[in-house]
Amino acid sequence: MTESTDPQALFLDDLTIGQTFESETYRVGEEQIKAFAREFDPQPFHLDDTAAKNSVFSGLAASGWHTAAITMRLITGIRPIFGSGVIGLGAEIAWPRPVRPDDVLRVVMKIAEIIPSRTRPDRGVVAMYCETFNQRGEVVQTLKPKLVMYRRGALRT
Amino acid sequence: MTESTDPQALFLDDLTIGQTFESETYRVGEEQIKAFAREFDPQPFHLDDTAAKNSVFSGLAASGWHTAAITMRLITGIRPIFGSGVIGLGAEIAWPRPVRPDDVLRVVMKIAEIIPSRTRPDRGVVAMYCETFNQRGEVVQTLKPKLVMYRRGALRT
Repeated sequence: MTESTDPQALFLDDLTIGQTFESETYRVGEEQIKAFAREFDPQPFHLDDTAAKNSVFSGLAASGWHTAAITMRLITGIRPIFGSGVIGLGAEIAWPRPVRPDDVLRVVMKIAEIIPSRTRPDRGVVAMYCETFNQRGEVVQTLKPKLVMYRRGALRT
Repeated sequence: MTESTDPQALFLDDLTIGQTFESETYRVGEEQIKAFAREFDPQPFHLDDTAAKNSVFSGLAASGWHTAAITMRLITGIRPIFGSGVIGLGAEIAWPRPVRPDDVLRVVMKIAEIIPSRTRPDRGVVAMYCETFNQRGEVVQTLKPKLVMYRRGALRT
């Protein structure tokens, strides 16, 4: 198996609780919102301006799963990278506020907990706390993923 | 605001705990896995066959967020529809097993809890339990979403 050869890459050994990472930004286009919704969440408030105005969202809103996918994109762009990848076992997710066309999103990710494996000393589970903000600094998504992370050298062949 | 005029549509009033819904099926193409990953989760094990073989996934695997998005697609296709839409406040999600090229997914969704709003009698929160299965009946995702649902007539203008 392979791990990153990037000398800056972070492994389980390098992480500490409270360590914080910030992503770049990502602008969400109106056409992207509609295209994602057509493929994965074809409900009127994600697809059509007039229907969206008359909906509980009072205007076009991105699918929460689109926000989640964009958040993942932003997380994978964070540097230094996680040398064994961003491999999620699961997560808790919440969408306190809709994402609108032309919102500019960014993610702040903090290490919440580090749980070394009892049976496999080469790895552990890292609980993160990720907030996705819009351009006004409002939280549009909170995400608490649990990632599998390996120690340096564990995946070297 | 608007609600569905479909006479079969279900509203908060119509739901009972334990009520179960089954989706149609959805075949996950290899090109789709790679295209989703290029846009939202560009990690080698979602993008490239050789890198994926040498990864912890031992072969190409869909992004968990792709599985989540496909699950949403399957949920929105369930009939009868939810007349006020499928509007999630948040969810717990887990991926016990990877989704592979040509897997055929389907969703079984059960009503776990119905919590009428204390302050707004026209709505409530419905907790669901959704399992996404592959063609061998193995669970590839569990999802516990909390949805806002309205009573019949609440969104009529």
